[in-house]
Amino acid sequence: MIRTTSLAATAAWLPQCRSVTASTATEPLVTPAQGAEPMLQYTPKPLPFDPTTLAGLSEKLMRSHYDNNYLGAVRKLDGVRQRLAETTDDAPGYVLHGLAQGELAFKHSVVLHELYFGGLVGGGSSGSATTALLAERFGGAAAWESRFRALGASLAGGSGWAIVEYDLHERAPRMYTAVDHGQGLSSGIPLLVLDMYEHSYHMDYGTAAARYIDAYLANVHWEEIDRRTERALRLPDGLF
Amino acid sequence: MIRTTSLAATAAWLPQCRSVTASTATEPLVTPAQGAEPMLQYTPKPLPFDPTTLAGLSEKLMRSHYDNNYLGAVRKLDGVRQRLAETTDDAPGYVLHGLAQGELAFKHSVVLHELYFGGLVGGGSSGSATTALLAERFGGAAAWESRFRALGASLAGGSGWAIVEYDLHERAPRMYTAVDHGQGLSSGIPLLVLDMYEHSYHMDYGTAAARYIDAYLANVHWEEIDRRTERALRLPDGLF
Amino acid sequence: MIRTTSLAATAAWLPQCRSVTASTATEPLVTPAQGAEPMLQYTPKPLPFDPTTLAGLSEKLMRSHYDNNYLGAVRKLDGVRQRLAETTDDAPGYVLHGLAQGELAFKHSVVLHELYFGGLVGGGSSGSATTALLAERFGGAAAWESRFRALGASLAGGSGWAIVEYDLHERAPRMYTAVDHGQGLSSGIPLLVLDMYEHSYHMDYGTAAARYIDAYLANVHWEEIDRRTERALRLPDGLF
Amino acid sequence: MIRTTSLAATAAWLPQCRSVTASTATEPLVTPAQGAEPMLQYTPKPLPFDPTTLAGLSEKLMRSHYDNNYLGAVRKLDGVRQRLAETTDDAPGYVLHGLAQGELAFKHSVVLHELYFGGLVGGGSSGSATTALLAERFGGAAAWESRFRALGASLAGGSGWAIVEYDLHERAPRMYTAVDHGQGLSSGIPLLVLDMYEHSYHMDYGTAAARYIDAYLANVHWEEIDRRTERALRLPDGLF
Repeated sequence: MIRTTSLAATAAWLPQCRSVTASTATEPLVTPAQGAEPMLQYTPKPLPFDPTTLAGLSEKLMRSHYDNNYLGAVRKLDGVRQRLAETTDDAPGYVLHGLAQGELAFKHSVVLHELYFGGLVGGGSSGSATTALLAERFGGAAAWESRFRALGASLAGGSGWAIVEYDLHERAPRMYTAVDHGQGLSSGIPLLVLDMYEHSYHMDYGTAAARYIDAYLANVHWEEIDRRTERALRLPDGLF
Repeated sequence: MIRTTSLAATAAWLPQCRSVTASTATEPLVTPAQGAEPMLQYTPKPLPFDPTTLAGLSEKLMRSHYDNNYLGAVRKLDGVRQRLAETTDDAPGYVLHGLAQGELAFKHSVVLHELYFGGLVGGGSSGSATTALLAERFGGAAAWESRFRALGASLAGGSGWAIVEYDLHERAPRMYTAVDHGQGLSSGIPLLVLDMYEHSYHMDYGTAAARYIDAYLANVHWEEIDRRTERALRLPDGLF
Repeated sequence: MIRTTSLAATAAWLPQCRSVTASTATEPLVTPAQGAEPMLQYTPKPLPFDPTTLAGLSEKLMRSHYDNNYLGAVRKLDGVRQRLAETTDDAPGYVLHGLAQGELAFKHSVVLHELYFGGLVGGGSSGSATTALLAERFGGAAAWESRFRALGASLAGGSGWAIVEYDLHERAPRMYTAVDHGQGLSSGIPLLVLDMYEHSYHMDYGTAAARYIDAYLANVHWEEIDRRTERALRLPDGLF
Repeated sequence: MIRTTSLAATAAWLPQCRSVTASTATEPLVTPAQGAEPMLQYTPKPLPFDPTTLAGLSEKLMRSHYDNNYLGAVRKLDGVRQRLAETTDDAPGYVLHGLAQGELAFKHSVVLHELYFGGLVGGGSSGSATTALLAERFGGAAAWESRFRALGASLAGGSGWAIVEYDLHERAPRMYTAVDHGQGLSSGIPLLVLDMYEHSYHMDYGTAAARYIDAYLANVHWEEIDRRTERALRLPDGLF
């Protein structure tokens, strides 16, 4: 969820956007084929910060990342949902499964990109709740950060995400690497989301992924990460 | 082996069998290597139904599925976490990433198997909240069930899961297929979880996956699925 | 290539089949869409042994494996190629890529299943060329077999292949595990191909994958494997 | 760093730079653990062209691609083989399988990168055998090129390869996309290999993948591709 105040302050280089509300989300937006899946239509969120203000991450890189990769994922999500709506249940399994896999990947790409952009801020910020939680779990804040950097760096040269999340199943923070948009844990609420696809850094850093991770960490919006952590910790037991 | 005494105490499954509490989960259970990740230790949940009571799913199959595949995933989860705890951050990236991928897969396998077993009951049951939600989204209950069956059947001959979940990002139900344990959507709360790994049905049905899906649907514990749905619908906005 | 005298002796429970010759393979079999890929049409190979004669692998299992999984892959290969032929180059990338991934998976499934079935024989057989090559590379025949069994067993509970091949790039034998049909090494000529999908053994052995590997090894057609090895060793340098 | 003296000796690349000979390849290079797999050690091939001479692909990009991604894959291949040599057969399956998956990915990355670099030349070149083969199969040279470009572009924004190969199983050319280094077809001899990992173009083209594909095609070493095609066509029947 993007902070509306930040949205108001964002340079208006994108049209104002809103997310799908519960009521519209459950209304079929097209007349589907008999037996087919009604389509949702996704409205992208705007970039929640001024891309000229991040230290060590260029405006060109951030705009390209947002315009091409995030908005590209939104367009592909809409497209694959349209195709799912047009596909009947007697289609070959590999067609239905292929579209379902595409929908999962583009949907998760949209979700993770929003969490990535939403977790950055020009000028940086400070926090405490998340750091305390991670320090308790990983043997200190420095030990946590070292492991997180190592996980991110392990994806250099390919595609993937390094994710810190709060797991509702064991009620503990955990970290993992995902090699494509389709991977993820149902019971995890992402807190810190680091995009390690090469489009996240090659323009600025080439293959020097470790320097990109430095820049990422220098721009983390810890106040927002703390809000995510606090919301996750308040979720009730019994979901998993 | 299945603990028969625990099986008798099935009714109180979910509340009783919390595996790791928040307090123990954040305590390192081994003395980790310098800079390494402290290990969690997972306590498996018992099978939450009497495996002699499902129609069309044999006791032999269910016990094998639970004993070998679920408990096997638990053992592997513990093992890979032990190795992660022993691995320092200067290990090669492919070693750290490989272990993180294993941890993700075994953890999600544990989570999904618990949701699968927890969603079955001898004698079946009836529900309404989930069916109403799905009917509204997918153009009727019959249309939803047809699409769900088709998604499950699309995985026949391989490995995977067909999952109905409530997505907190768009606040709408959705369905997808996952080809291995590592796939999933962070923002989705699983409601109905269908295991399509061949170990879920080959002993009873060979390659006749559609007949297995019939049997699965005949044993769904809809009261429990409705509880999952109601809990998911009550979750607050702002997590995604 | 499997057709030998043993093919003639095969119980004629399948119609006589032939493979696609080079001349027909390059002829478009449908009139494709403008800018689309002409389709090939694949003729399945018959089961090259009498399925009643294998020790420890039941006729029911082998017929099901051939009829449902191999012939199923052939049908899906034809289907996905038909769809590729009907898809124009301006289709969304995920559609084209999805079909290309399907074609790769079903094609490799066909190739690997033919190598699997073609490497089995009732009554077993003896060989020497392959064993000598593997013993030299892996520190003895027993060390090779132990590692091969361990690789196969590592796939228990999921889907995959354990493959021994002769690599033309380094001109040495190597082994690997593949987690789905789409994985493989361009420079490798498969010698010994072990199907570890659960449909290969669950009917007979349930989750006891190690006992299935015993049965597989007891039925290996070593004379045929040696022919593969000798052909591979004779291939010229310079391909990789 | 690229060995400039080796670059000068570029003409004799393929014959000169055989990495591991058959005789050394089968000799254990380390004393392995009891029951473990003896290690190979791989000697990288030099960049087979002068990286200042390609049109539209900068020296900086090509040197980075070779130095970091190709040589990085070689280093990781050696490393994972060392670990395999130190791993005994009673290690947990996920450890052995994880290392085997790593070995497959890094090995194939080495093979495909050598075919990619070996298929480029400053100043371009002309050919005929491959084009004729592809035109016959894909309904004309323009239709082939259009489909190849579309397959390559379908991977924009992620990781993968677009590959044209000669398939020995059906004795026909085919094309496919691979989403990571581990995918491939055992029966295919690669002819034209297009790297679509973002590290192949982001430094020069950002997300404009289609312009990178233009540049790639303008620098294809068709004489070398034709040599690959001619060698593949001469391979005997009976391998698949």
